[in-house]
Amino acid sequence: MDIFDNAVISQHLSHVRIVMVNTTLPANIGSALRAMKTMGLSKLVLVAPKTYPHPDIEALAAGATDLIKSIEIVECLEDAIKDCHLVFGTSARSRTIPWPLLDARPAAERSMQSVIYSQQEVAVVFGREDRGLTNEELALANYHVTIPVNSDYGVLNVAQAIQVICYEMRMATLALADKTVDTQAVMHVTDSADMHWDEPLVTHEQMEQFYPHIEKMLAEIEFLDPKNPRLLPLRLRRLFGRIQLDKMEYHLLRGIFSRVQALNNGTWKKSKHEDQN
Amino acid sequence: MDIFDNAVISQHLSHVRIVMVNTTLPANIGSALRAMKTMGLSKLVLVAPKTYPHPDIEALAAGATDLIKSIEIVECLEDAIKDCHLVFGTSARSRTIPWPLLDARPAAERSMQSVIYSQQEVAVVFGREDRGLTNEELALANYHVTIPVNSDYGVLNVAQAIQVICYEMRMATLALADKTVDTQAVMHVTDSADMHWDEPLVTHEQMEQFYPHIEKMLAEIEFLDPKNPRLLPLRLRRLFGRIQLDKMEYHLLRGIFSRVQALNNGTWKKSKHEDQN
Repeated sequence: MDIFDNAVISQHLSHVRIVMVNTTLPANIGSALRAMKTMGLSKLVLVAPKTYPHPDIEALAAGATDLIKSIEIVECLEDAIKDCHLVFGTSARSRTIPWPLLDARPAAERSMQSVIYSQQEVAVVFGREDRGLTNEELALANYHVTIPVNSDYGVLNVAQAIQVICYEMRMATLALADKTVDTQAVMHVTDSADMHWDEPLVTHEQMEQFYPHIEKMLAEIEFLDPKNPRLLPLRLRRLFGRIQLDKMEYHLLRGIFSRVQALNNGTWKKSKHEDQN
Repeated sequence: MDIFDNAVISQHLSHVRIVMVNTTLPANIGSALRAMKTMGLSKLVLVAPKTYPHPDIEALAAGATDLIKSIEIVECLEDAIKDCHLVFGTSARSRTIPWPLLDARPAAERSMQSVIYSQQEVAVVFGREDRGLTNEELALANYHVTIPVNSDYGVLNVAQAIQVICYEMRMATLALADKTVDTQAVMHVTDSADMHWDEPLVTHEQMEQFYPHIEKMLAEIEFLDPKNPRLLPLRLRRLFGRIQLDKMEYHLLRGIFSRVQALNNGTWKKSKHEDQN
């Protein structure tokens, strides 16, 4: 079974439930479902929703309406989290209740480690649209979680907050799934490794044939003086060295150099019909 | 001045513009402003919006209506990005156009490194609600950026996508602001954007003169058939788009193209002493 398989990722994420307390607007429930499904989460628990069911839920859920039938409705927060091992209460940083507080990213990393390595159940609890969670509700959580926002403004609505949390849960799962395969590889990931190429990148060895070719071509068209090359060869290395050419591009460029050489030494001439244009 | 100061973070983020192309729903523009302001971004450019202005923009922007007055409206994407150094086009992973592709997180890290260490201007371009960006628009970007989503479902709407991108931009800024305190950490970053070049990097607008030049030169030496260019122009954009040329390199390459053109049309000839060699 491929550890990167989407079904496996979703299976891990099925152990993270989103809990919404006393939600007033059905549209927010629909948006939450959509945000969840986009990131691979599937379990929503509603604690005493103000308006349920409601057509807005289906409307906002868009293609995620299949998750509606598995929504669980409970009367109090304790019922929503009783079988959970790790409970996060969402909170603005300014809360007065003193509690261990994690940013969304480390909270998600912690959550998915607990799910994947310790088969735990995780809940992230979101409060009312207007006033969040009460201090009593926040005290039921192991940790509080906050999303670092612009402190001069800082009002994510509940659907946006769920979006960010679900995104971080997915990212944490992908990172962990990655690590369980090959910890070695993860250590060495650099920028370019994140790119997805159709063609393999050329090796250092191939590039060592590339530079003499471009320099020879430039010398032939007297753009580079071999007796006094100045900084030109170095500039070319710096320039092409940071591209990381793929094989297709490598052959494309060497093909251009060869054409210029052939043009210059007379072994290639413009075709006749082109001359007439 | 505290490097974590919210004003400093927002100042860095002011160099990242969000560009929305042909947006149909004003509500999405309002939601975008809210998502931006929550994360500290402030510059929105609209390319030929379908409906503007519209009361829904103010309604959905909630407390972010102050950003409306600084919205820039332009007629085409080129105008929106001409003074930018680094342009990201948002794209679903399934796109057929092959292009360097980064996930949202490394794209944001790359962006904020470019802003903070190299004083660059960054644009992230979002497409139409129904069909995203055209291949022509995507080809104007240095990189494509994607948000890793549930591949069995995977439909973030444009406002949600902007939310996630803006969140990652803020997270990357916070992380870098952290690192600038500790110079040791900065020393180990390998990305080209961190290197201190002697020369300023060229803008998107300058590169828009570069591509026609190389294509014209290649057409003249019949390496490219203007009537049937196939994928060659696209490959050249992909290749040089990810280098980020500095001014010296830009003039160096354009000098080479001009020499080849002059050689080809006979206005430049090899010097006599070279012929005798």
